[in-house]
Amino acid sequence: MKEYRSMTSQELEELHQQLSQQYASVKARGLSLNMARGNPSEEQLALTDEMFTILTPDTPMVGEDGKDYRNYGLLYGTKEARRLMGEVLDVEWDQVIVGGSSSLTMMYDTLMRGMVFGMLHSPQPWCMCPDRKFICLVPGYDRHFAITQDLGFELVTVPLREDGPDMDLVEEIVKDSSVKGIWCVPKYSNPNGVVYSDEVIRRLAAMETGAPDFTILWDNAYGLHHLYPDSPAEIANIFTYAKEYGHEDRVIAFASTSKVTYAGAGLAALAASKANIDYIGSHMTHQTIGADKVNMARHVLFLKDLAHIREHMKKHAAILRPKFELVERRFHEAFDGLGIASWTEPRGGYFITCTVPDGCARRVVALAEEAGVVLTGAGATHPYRKDPRDNTIRIAPSYPPLAELDQAMEVYCLCVKLAAVESLLAR
Amino acid sequence: MKEYRSMTSQELEELHQQLSQQYASVKARGLSLNMARGNPSEEQLALTDEMFTILTPDTPMVGEDGKDYRNYGLLYGTKEARRLMGEVLDVEWDQVIVGGSSSLTMMYDTLMRGMVFGMLHSPQPWCMCPDRKFICLVPGYDRHFAITQDLGFELVTVPLREDGPDMDLVEEIVKDSSVKGIWCVPKYSNPNGVVYSDEVIRRLAAMETGAPDFTILWDNAYGLHHLYPDSPAEIANIFTYAKEYGHEDRVIAFASTSKVTYAGAGLAALAASKANIDYIGSHMTHQTIGADKVNMARHVLFLKDLAHIREHMKKHAAILRPKFELVERRFHEAFDGLGIASWTEPRGGYFITCTVPDGCARRVVALAEEAGVVLTGAGATHPYRKDPRDNTIRIAPSYPPLAELDQAMEVYCLCVKLAAVESLLAR
Repeated sequence: MKEYRSMTSQELEELHQQLSQQYASVKARGLSLNMARGNPSEEQLALTDEMFTILTPDTPMVGEDGKDYRNYGLLYGTKEARRLMGEVLDVEWDQVIVGGSSSLTMMYDTLMRGMVFGMLHSPQPWCMCPDRKFICLVPGYDRHFAITQDLGFELVTVPLREDGPDMDLVEEIVKDSSVKGIWCVPKYSNPNGVVYSDEVIRRLAAMETGAPDFTILWDNAYGLHHLYPDSPAEIANIFTYAKEYGHEDRVIAFASTSKVTYAGAGLAALAASKANIDYIGSHMTHQTIGADKVNMARHVLFLKDLAHIREHMKKHAAILRPKFELVERRFHEAFDGLGIASWTEPRGGYFITCTVPDGCARRVVALAEEAGVVLTGAGATHPYRKDPRDNTIRIAPSYPPLAELDQAMEVYCLCVKLAAVESLLAR
Repeated sequence: MKEYRSMTSQELEELHQQLSQQYASVKARGLSLNMARGNPSEEQLALTDEMFTILTPDTPMVGEDGKDYRNYGLLYGTKEARRLMGEVLDVEWDQVIVGGSSSLTMMYDTLMRGMVFGMLHSPQPWCMCPDRKFICLVPGYDRHFAITQDLGFELVTVPLREDGPDMDLVEEIVKDSSVKGIWCVPKYSNPNGVVYSDEVIRRLAAMETGAPDFTILWDNAYGLHHLYPDSPAEIANIFTYAKEYGHEDRVIAFASTSKVTYAGAGLAALAASKANIDYIGSHMTHQTIGADKVNMARHVLFLKDLAHIREHMKKHAAILRPKFELVERRFHEAFDGLGIASWTEPRGGYFITCTVPDGCARRVVALAEEAGVVLTGAGATHPYRKDPRDNTIRIAPSYPPLAELDQAMEVYCLCVKLAAVESLLAR
């Protein structure tokens, strides 16, 4: 294989013609494959079938709190559900609020409270701080970025490195008291699968910040989502470090069972210091009488405890791993030696990040869409959807069945090659 | 029976001694009855038993939208659920957002969006309007009042009359552009069971307001909750009037199935103009990917359509009506001719309002609690929990079984008498 950039113009022209023909014939297939989002597949969803009928009219409906799950009450969730999600989040049950079925909503609501009331240590509500800023790691998760953008924060970009955020840069930026927080996905980060090192987590907990209300939104979305459960990544407990440095109120952690049971119909939870739980509760008590406890009961019966969740997650891994391995195999076959693409090989989570030649990502996504394969929009991995080098593409292999994924990867690899050749020819 | 106020001091002294003895013996029973909130009873909750097992792994999980209920998506809810809640709210399905299990949360989130972003026609976010005000009808619902108080609105009190809000006063108050909205429970109002007249609803829709973003939060919590289903109260469709007057974006209506299926674990929905739905959606898309669609599927299968819900609600009425009738009977027996209490006789909803002599409500609630009967806190029916005449008590007969309710009413009536005599003796 010859690297594309070493090719002569004539070689590139020939290659372009050949790839264009292939592309035309792929397009003629009339594919319609959607790989835009990290959705679990039908096969994964079926792993939870048992939950449909796990509650019966004979199931006791009163738990440890003495409250009927079918009636009003329990602002923070049932004790059983708080204990379960406490195990997931690695905190005590009384540091947990189980709140509905979306951790994204719990993050959003946390920031909305910050806007209107301020956080526990805010000198004033964030809406009164016109030059408010929020740190966004790149590449990162578009929905995180969109929330803080919608709330009027300036998004400050920091590179996500192999071991987590570039902490030298973060420590410098947070000296500015208008920088109010940072989004983190500490394990199997969306989209590049990075696992934060112990050192990074310690520095996040320890750093001095200009803002007394600086907040780490610790979205542990993939905490149990190993692709290789026999060698799972583990991360430090940030609350332990934060406590050590007297910054316990800085961290609010989130998790859900969206990719354990049902996407958008599972349990979501946040974990925080007790002072934060009290503060959040003091406003949350006006927002709700309590989230759906019947669904909590269902989940507690089905998931039982952390050990049982880990066993359940092995079934997910057995479905997901072959998909990730297929993508990596196809990438090797297509790209080795060409110098036009590199990619992450994550050990968990839902995404692979593929880096294509500068200026090519948008073109690749457009070409793929034209050929019937919808990818995550180029730029989605960056604040304001602006990837300055236009070279980052998020691959979401979870949803399609293997055969469809294989077709989609054929299209994708072809599109990367075509865009790369076009780019070299245009120089 | 002699009216208390016609009694001589000596008669009152004797009565006081006699009532005090009765009170002491009641206290000695060591009762523990809670009538603080409008919770459905165990018997009512059991009406929904079938819903536990209504979904099975064989139930089709893809609805009219073509999306799997167990996967991410459908910001506004499933089409089937939107149609069902549209029937409940008397609007088209595309004017409905089905969002989780709590209409209170949907109201709160609506106001939070107003605070941070403003409403559709706001010149600026409400948080930027330091003298913002909200109209609260009295007597009314403590959770409504608490939300707007927490959000920093000054609560402006307007009397709720037999046919709804005092509209002369409302029309005057809304000329002030800092008055941003009004809380309404238009049918079987909490706590006095008032049903808004056609004329009142027309005037709410028609009135000119100083604020272009004046919002009617139309909490139709008891729209289908008739105690006498053969003679149900019906109210005008406020959206029809609002459209007629060009004020369609003024109204946001809410309902839930909390007192149809499970309290806090049902379906909640809002209805609004399409322009409002689009506006709300433009921010909601950052808050959530979509609410629990599995629970929507469960509810659509169980509740079917409006006609079926009406039949189902008759079963609730059959359980609730004897409780309301018991309270009214006990009140007549205890109070007729004494001139110390009056009460509402609602045709639906969850509450009876009892009016005791001025200055006695707090004392009655305290006496009852000391004797083991927890009532809704005195003052809860008024903004800032301040009932200026201290004479309004909300009776919530729904939760206790009939025998317990009877005991509680015995205690309650005794406490009213005792407080009334104390009050007369203190003059």
